[in-house]
Amino acid sequence: MRFSKKVQECSLSPIRKFYPYAEEAKRQGKRIYHLNIGQPDVETPRAFFDAVQNFAQPVLAYAPSPGLPVLIEAVIQYYEQLGIHYEPGDVTVTTGGSEALSIALNCILDDGDEIIVPEPFYPNYNTFARIAGAHIRPVETRPEEGYRFAIREKIEAAINANTRAILFSNPGNPTGTVLDESELRLLADIAKEHDLFLIGDEVYREFVYGGEQLTSIGQYGDIAERAIIIDSVSKRFSACGARIGMLITRNKELQQHAMKICQARLSVATLDQIASAALYSAGSGYFDTVRAEYRQRRDTIYQKLSVIPGVICSEPKGAFYVMAKLPIDDAEKFQTWMLQEFSDGNETIMLAPGAGFYATPGRGRDEVRLAYVLKQSDLERAMDLLALGIHEYRNLNR
Amino acid sequence: MRFSKKVQECSLSPIRKFYPYAEEAKRQGKRIYHLNIGQPDVETPRAFFDAVQNFAQPVLAYAPSPGLPVLIEAVIQYYEQLGIHYEPGDVTVTTGGSEALSIALNCILDDGDEIIVPEPFYPNYNTFARIAGAHIRPVETRPEEGYRFAIREKIEAAINANTRAILFSNPGNPTGTVLDESELRLLADIAKEHDLFLIGDEVYREFVYGGEQLTSIGQYGDIAERAIIIDSVSKRFSACGARIGMLITRNKELQQHAMKICQARLSVATLDQIASAALYSAGSGYFDTVRAEYRQRRDTIYQKLSVIPGVICSEPKGAFYVMAKLPIDDAEKFQTWMLQEFSDGNETIMLAPGAGFYATPGRGRDEVRLAYVLKQSDLERAMDLLALGIHEYRNLNR
Repeated sequence: MRFSKKVQECSLSPIRKFYPYAEEAKRQGKRIYHLNIGQPDVETPRAFFDAVQNFAQPVLAYAPSPGLPVLIEAVIQYYEQLGIHYEPGDVTVTTGGSEALSIALNCILDDGDEIIVPEPFYPNYNTFARIAGAHIRPVETRPEEGYRFAIREKIEAAINANTRAILFSNPGNPTGTVLDESELRLLADIAKEHDLFLIGDEVYREFVYGGEQLTSIGQYGDIAERAIIIDSVSKRFSACGARIGMLITRNKELQQHAMKICQARLSVATLDQIASAALYSAGSGYFDTVRAEYRQRRDTIYQKLSVIPGVICSEPKGAFYVMAKLPIDDAEKFQTWMLQEFSDGNETIMLAPGAGFYATPGRGRDEVRLAYVLKQSDLERAMDLLALGIHEYRNLNR
Repeated sequence: MRFSKKVQECSLSPIRKFYPYAEEAKRQGKRIYHLNIGQPDVETPRAFFDAVQNFAQPVLAYAPSPGLPVLIEAVIQYYEQLGIHYEPGDVTVTTGGSEALSIALNCILDDGDEIIVPEPFYPNYNTFARIAGAHIRPVETRPEEGYRFAIREKIEAAINANTRAILFSNPGNPTGTVLDESELRLLADIAKEHDLFLIGDEVYREFVYGGEQLTSIGQYGDIAERAIIIDSVSKRFSACGARIGMLITRNKELQQHAMKICQARLSVATLDQIASAALYSAGSGYFDTVRAEYRQRRDTIYQKLSVIPGVICSEPKGAFYVMAKLPIDDAEKFQTWMLQEFSDGNETIMLAPGAGFYATPGRGRDEVRLAYVLKQSDLERAMDLLALGIHEYRNLNR
């Protein structure tokens, strides 16, 4: 049987590809510290489960295609507190930020189109772009330069007649970079000058550690028609399994096209929407607590990482990832070895090898992404294991 | 800003387009009987809500991308009872049957490809096909012939070099037709002979009223590689708001391609999966009760409909829809008039005008789809209103 060209050009998740080795290691009784996946360990606020428990309708019916009004209202209030005003028609509820991005790309991309994405990037961007018929044109960055990409020449060099949008995550997954106001303004200016959509994946918005409030592309009135925000409750409220996200834009025409796709898939899970609306009542105190916890983890992982001889990394400013260049030949080989051969006290770690975050062949091979979603003591132990692993691996491959 | 050609060729749901008129009618105090949408009024089994209430994990984490093992196992057991054997790798959990279809089409369709669908068809098929880059080539049917489409010459006339699959719903939405064994076998044979995928939307499987068990394309061993079943808990357990569906096929390569898309969207809602697994414990007694209720409704609506002068319809054998040709010029005009002008005891009805179920321009204009998802007494009243409405409308337009 023949399959579509577009799906054949997609890949399985590079983050999940080492699971078979991990399962084998676990069967052998090895404990694995997972630094490979962004599944937070923070408890989901009780408000979510309370709302679920209080649901008393006898029929679990479809929700309206654009989303339940109670959730849309909660999202609008949340943005009001950030000083950003949205109307109900500007917010469409989606099945996770993933569906928001998939819908947005399908609304603007045809076969042969391109979107610009700074690399390294969240690998699933590639699948969503390919399934929409388009390709990603990467903007190269370097670990030695802290993965900065908001540089006019770099971005403009990637723009051509097929370019339709610039897509970026801020705070950045996998790099942990946070754009400052002038960098974000530059992206907005470039989008304006070249008539592009600017798609900001801001799902990590609350995870910034410099004391500043994150600048959102929603703040710029002059790009209201071209700004598309991908948002989600997954990381913000440690509710990844709710699969509740939002497609946010003041571009009414885009929202109307998006609604065609939303109506076709009928609706987003009713209970999860009701419960997610309740999450937004958690308040800024909740974010302060969670942020303080992650800041401490960030400090730990960065301090431990930066003293490993030969490692190149910059202090991550946001999200809960750090990307680093390791003094090894190949991170995939290293990961396989860490699972199959390495052990200290019958323990090892998993990380996400860097190549999967790059579109350019050959790049990222000696880089890794580490997610700091473990509690302090586990994180310290995991980083000691990494240091030990690098040391042993280098001795073996000397 | 420019939008994709594919999304511009999609439409908003024809079923939902009369909502503004309906809201205005409701504001004026009019009661509306909804025959326009397939939202069952049957209570969702308690097992669903019990499972939700018993969830006690502190973190609502991502589920595995292929679905939670407990749900996959429940689906496999359900099929075993139908005499159809599946392995865990044959079942992928999706966000409703909608996502199952969207993923399947993206795996097999590129720009310029075609799928064959008997018309009238579920309008969202068109959106999913267009977003995947393809077009629907309809197989024409006629109300006077009970909308039968499983006729070799008709189907083969629609096949060309770009054809990749035959997609159909069985029992049929919107027509209520049920394929008999020889008809289904014919579709399987044609798929084999022309090397096509055969996509069976079997979400209404339990809703057949002739006492027979529905034949599923999953029963044919000789088309295991080309049979794709779209399944869902939505209608089967009156749990539309759970958004839990399944993509079922023994084609391992297709499942592997599908997994690329599934990993990109990460997972399906965790709580809804756990609760949906519990639904499958409802047992066949549950289906018997629900089926008896719908059979009675089917009898009512068909009896009432067939005695309206000038109406052409066949007794629906399955699902909970009946498609009928009305003695009117234009069902959309008639629907607007029913909402704006008509009233009997301050009551009126909504139905789904037929044109939206056709790909061929101009077809279905004097047809409507009626969903019998209301309780007996409401259904009787709604049908009396329809008869009265047709009578008055014809007098006005004489």
